[in-house]
Amino acid sequence: MKHDWLDKVNWAQDGLVPVVTQEAGSGRVLTVAWMNREALGKTVETGEAHYWSRSRRKLWHKGEESGHVQKVKSIRLDCDEDVLLIEVEQVGGIACHTGRHSCFFRKFDGGKWVATDPVLKDPRDIYGK
Amino acid sequence: MKHDWLDKVNWAQDGLVPVVTQEAGSGRVLTVAWMNREALGKTVETGEAHYWSRSRRKLWHKGEESGHVQKVKSIRLDCDEDVLLIEVEQVGGIACHTGRHSCFFRKFDGGKWVATDPVLKDPRDIYGK
Repeated sequence: MKHDWLDKVNWAQDGLVPVVTQEAGSGRVLTVAWMNREALGKTVETGEAHYWSRSRRKLWHKGEESGHVQKVKSIRLDCDEDVLLIEVEQVGGIACHTGRHSCFFRKFDGGKWVATDPVLKDPRDIYGK
Repeated sequence: MKHDWLDKVNWAQDGLVPVVTQEAGSGRVLTVAWMNREALGKTVETGEAHYWSRSRRKLWHKGEESGHVQKVKSIRLDCDEDVLLIEVEQVGGIACHTGRHSCFFRKFDGGKWVATDPVLKDPRDIYGK
């Protein structure tokens, strides 16, 4: 894919940039994931968030298994052009593979990390495993 | 520094994790930067955001030159324990070295990146250079 706007992104040596995904309306940060050129291209083309899964080493259409896709409202690039911020509508209200709204469910409190957010749906019911 | 809560963070091979910094109240994502153990320790100890500057390869007390320090309200850790989310009060209302409120001042619009946020203060006046 040849696009000036894709070339403008300062991809790291491994071809990736971090992506902060924020929920439209609530402003809640849901996830931080990674995109390569192809993932960003697909995201723009389809209007749904696509990432590069570093663990599975493949393009990942968020929600492809769970149905919890992210409908993209806006895409922003930072001053160093090496981080993306996308604003999404989170279908199903669950962004985290643990069945929680946000991946940032642990809060530092009194010298330890405390899980403060409830599991909304059992992951076994989300992924059918 | 020996602390269980520091060991709990899944530091990458280079000793760093990405940190999303979000403004309390507005919910605006201001910056994405990096912390190592020392930076997170100092952040908790002082209540002001400290990062690891990858370009200068040193501990960086955000605002040390500009006065635009970030007063930390909360610290969160994600499901994979390898990304931090901190909520701050941004002193001076300027987080970006370009003199803007947020580093994410470029929006994807009509096939290009468009700077949508104003420069609030000339960086030469911020840094006295």
